[in-house]
Amino acid sequence: MPNRTYESNLQEKIVEYVVNILILAINYMSENKIPAGLAGVPVTTSSISSIDGEKGILKYRGFTIEELTEKSSFTETAYLLIYGKLPNQEENDLFTNDINLHRRLKYKMIDMIKCLPDNGHPMDATQALIAVLGMFYPFESKEFTKPEVQRLAITRLISKMPSIVAAYHRMRYGDLALQPKDDLDYSSNFLYMLSEIEPDPEQASIMEKALILHMEHTMNASTFSARVTGSTLADPFTVISSAVGTLTGPLHGGANEQVLVMLQEIGSVKNTEKAIDTKLKNKDKIMGFGHRVYKVKDPRAKILQKLAEQLFLKYGSNPLYDIAVKVEEVMEKRVGEKGIYPNVDFYSALVYDKLRVQSDLFTPIFAMARVVGWLAHWVEQMQDNRIYRPKAIYVGPTNNEYLPVDKR
Amino acid sequence: MPNRTYESNLQEKIVEYVVNILILAINYMSENKIPAGLAGVPVTTSSISSIDGEKGILKYRGFTIEELTEKSSFTETAYLLIYGKLPNQEENDLFTNDINLHRRLKYKMIDMIKCLPDNGHPMDATQALIAVLGMFYPFESKEFTKPEVQRLAITRLISKMPSIVAAYHRMRYGDLALQPKDDLDYSSNFLYMLSEIEPDPEQASIMEKALILHMEHTMNASTFSARVTGSTLADPFTVISSAVGTLTGPLHGGANEQVLVMLQEIGSVKNTEKAIDTKLKNKDKIMGFGHRVYKVKDPRAKILQKLAEQLFLKYGSNPLYDIAVKVEEVMEKRVGEKGIYPNVDFYSALVYDKLRVQSDLFTPIFAMARVVGWLAHWVEQMQDNRIYRPKAIYVGPTNNEYLPVDKR
Repeated sequence: MPNRTYESNLQEKIVEYVVNILILAINYMSENKIPAGLAGVPVTTSSISSIDGEKGILKYRGFTIEELTEKSSFTETAYLLIYGKLPNQEENDLFTNDINLHRRLKYKMIDMIKCLPDNGHPMDATQALIAVLGMFYPFESKEFTKPEVQRLAITRLISKMPSIVAAYHRMRYGDLALQPKDDLDYSSNFLYMLSEIEPDPEQASIMEKALILHMEHTMNASTFSARVTGSTLADPFTVISSAVGTLTGPLHGGANEQVLVMLQEIGSVKNTEKAIDTKLKNKDKIMGFGHRVYKVKDPRAKILQKLAEQLFLKYGSNPLYDIAVKVEEVMEKRVGEKGIYPNVDFYSALVYDKLRVQSDLFTPIFAMARVVGWLAHWVEQMQDNRIYRPKAIYVGPTNNEYLPVDKR
Repeated sequence: MPNRTYESNLQEKIVEYVVNILILAINYMSENKIPAGLAGVPVTTSSISSIDGEKGILKYRGFTIEELTEKSSFTETAYLLIYGKLPNQEENDLFTNDINLHRRLKYKMIDMIKCLPDNGHPMDATQALIAVLGMFYPFESKEFTKPEVQRLAITRLISKMPSIVAAYHRMRYGDLALQPKDDLDYSSNFLYMLSEIEPDPEQASIMEKALILHMEHTMNASTFSARVTGSTLADPFTVISSAVGTLTGPLHGGANEQVLVMLQEIGSVKNTEKAIDTKLKNKDKIMGFGHRVYKVKDPRAKILQKLAEQLFLKYGSNPLYDIAVKVEEVMEKRVGEKGIYPNVDFYSALVYDKLRVQSDLFTPIFAMARVVGWLAHWVEQMQDNRIYRPKAIYVGPTNNEYLPVDKR
């Protein structure tokens, strides 16, 4: 671990925590209920990422996502998040090489994918196949506290996720799964394995930046889920399978595939204002807008919008983009003052669509990136672990009389 | 829902909560760290089960486990936990019949199990196959908020868990998976599907009681995990798959298969005192002892001990039982005053072993029972849902200088 200046003072943070929890407790006392969803309740300290929701800043280990998407590759950023520092040349080469070498899937995995229903959701397939993955490495599953074993499990998980997503996608259409190409980098290889077409470097670079933007986002539901599962000392494959499951939900990662559906339904720029007003009037959710943490435009959305524009400039515009821009304009007028702005899902949908990725793969791609953040949190959790065992306040009956079945 | 007297006053509980959280907060301030594992922190209200750790009482919906194991069947108790009341005759017949009818596995599931590694852990297989199960029911996966769809998903999950566990177990040894027998009840059928031998009614009844005792236990790590995953509105198959993963960990459900290993290692009654003393001296964990919640002997352990004795009386003693009794005696003398007593895992291991169940199936059997509690908590969570999104206190570097790779 590198020398780092901890500018933040833990003591001060704890005082802040106590004050927060007090305010929360008083609120809950007056409202007569306890904090739903642990909103605002700190569950751990962490040095992985930080958000300034007022200013719209997201940092990984003290680096802004703007700087990282500009300067870092997928593997460099993954290394930073998991191991706490940017890799030097040797570390980067070794890590990148390891990731590239572990991409192949066992024939038994391919056979298993043949048995999966064609019309299931790719996220369910991913959750299942990650759990199966662990069965092939019983040693890693048990001995994961040893650093070299942990490192190998991390490599396998990052490396095989795109292969799993691509293999299920191709095979559900009856197509053969493709072998990875060793000379292609992470993002180019993923796009190739999906479509059998090697992407332009610019397309691959845009995919890579989108992935970097999805890698980590402090304590969200799936990351928390990874920590809860990991806290029982379940193995890393089990942990990541659980986190994939949690990301599936439409209140979490599952939302991004809905953006495209909404834009398609709106259908045209001239329709947009009316459509949005109707939705707002009916209190329908506007997909891709609003975030618990950001009170301004999501910094990831800003970068993704630029990436989308870059793609359209080179490969021709997408009529949905004009609708998207109009949606944002109308939303800004109607609810901008309430702090409801585009989030990461809004423009990522347009980017992936333009890269010819099918919309139900958007969440699995999110998972391919977020596995890095999950693993970083799992490693951190393992450094000072205690099992998560909160309390439930019991409000049910205390004594019930047992009646025989014919008297009920 | 039946009329019930809520003797517990929520207002009082909230005040208790605030006081608790205050004490916690002050402790954390003086120790300069925040509550690890959310110990003592309430995350929700619940009316499913309650524990009195001082007196050693566990109740499901206001009924003691002693009364339920004596009077109720597996399906009656499951109905009580999930739907909040004991079923009348018609409800019980319908529910039991539905559970029995859904036991079959699709041939594609069987094909998939053929591709699983033989030496993987059955819990990983279970986690994977539950995730796959959801792919066969895309409608249920999406529309689970509709009561009749929810009911069907609940039925399928309870019904197919034993079939999945038994099928993987048989097939890893190259044996054909067995079709369920419609005329056998839940527990008899499970034992039959494992071994191809129909158990005596007494064996089945003891298995059934053991399952009832494992169904629910307030807010533990896997139940919390089910709530966290469920709070994103992930479908019930995804939720249960995540919870199975969390139960896997050796600090949670994964502990029970270790009890038998320990007893076998001790090897004889005359060895016991010395073996335990050595373990205590080396601060090794004594498997099957101690529980965060109980300060006396776990009420489930008491019942399971009786069940074990009942089995030994009829089917011949197990030499490990004498060792177990001796272990308890030595432990009582050495650490009884510290409140370290046998927990649910200690005698359940002996019961399952005497029923000729292989030790790495103990945790999957735990999962078959606990799926009922997970589903009860999931149903409760869906009634007033908010996504779990706690906070992490960031203690990492706030500004890092980005150096090019050759300068790192």
